[in-house]
Amino acid sequence: MASKLVADCLFCKIIRGEIPSVKLLETATTFAFLDIGPLSEGHALVIPKFHAEKMHQLPDEFLADAMPVAKKIAMALGADNYNILQNNGRLAHQQVMHVHFHVIPKPSADKGLSMEWNAETADVERLKDLAKNMKL
Amino acid sequence: MASKLVADCLFCKIIRGEIPSVKLLETATTFAFLDIGPLSEGHALVIPKFHAEKMHQLPDEFLADAMPVAKKIAMALGADNYNILQNNGRLAHQQVMHVHFHVIPKPSADKGLSMEWNAETADVERLKDLAKNMKL
Ligand SMILES: [Zn+2]
Ligand SMILES: [Zn+2]
Repeated sequence: MASKLVADCLFCKIIRGEIPSVKLLETATTFAFLDIGPLSEGHALVIPKFHAEKMHQLPDEFLADAMPVAKKIAMALGADNYNILQNNGRLAHQQVMHVHFHVIPKPSADKGLSMEWNAETADVERLKDLAKNMKL
Repeated sequence: MASKLVADCLFCKIIRGEIPSVKLLETATTFAFLDIGPLSEGHALVIPKFHAEKMHQLPDEFLADAMPVAKKIAMALGADNYNILQNNGRLAHQQVMHVHFHVIPKPSADKGLSMEWNAETADVERLKDLAKNMKL
């Protein structure tokens, strides 16, 4: 499938080379570069060459290539600890409205991605009801 | 490529059905179910049918299927805001040592994934040096 880019998007402009970036690698469907506002050294962004705001709006072909590209970057970084993160929507911390996957090395507790993990304990019957009602 | 599972792993046992789970969907290479310790309602896990601790240790074929499966779940959940997260290594908050992708709805500020975003401003020349030294 052909890439789809739009005029008025920071990441589409980076893909087209209209805005400079520190490129890491590029495939037919994916572009990867270093984040200019890193959470840790080596923080990279993997972006599909298809303008869509959210992950579920991407064609599968563009989605399929993202993690193999992230893998190449993770291997080249040589990080023992790292997070892959992709945020959808302002409330979920998305800042540029073109799908992007973060590859964020976690070299120490005070660098990289910091999370709070406020897990509940689910009621299994409730989970079963939820799954039953999902159109999958 | 054939799946590869091991005996002594919680997620391999879930894939084999030796431990029950609330399954959402399954493909030749991927298994997805609801997290029993959710950060929000609908918190799901997408796991490759291949035992590896970290993302970069997975064959590309298993990596390629993960995001299209996550997309199906995101669409079925109908969440406007959600995060995709995959943690590698204890320091990066990995708790089960079999690669898993979280799909975490973010219905409100106090539910779902909470992050701190302590971004630096990178020196571009330093980023260029870093990219040059990465074997990509
Ligand atoms: Zn764009
Ligand atoms: Zn396993």
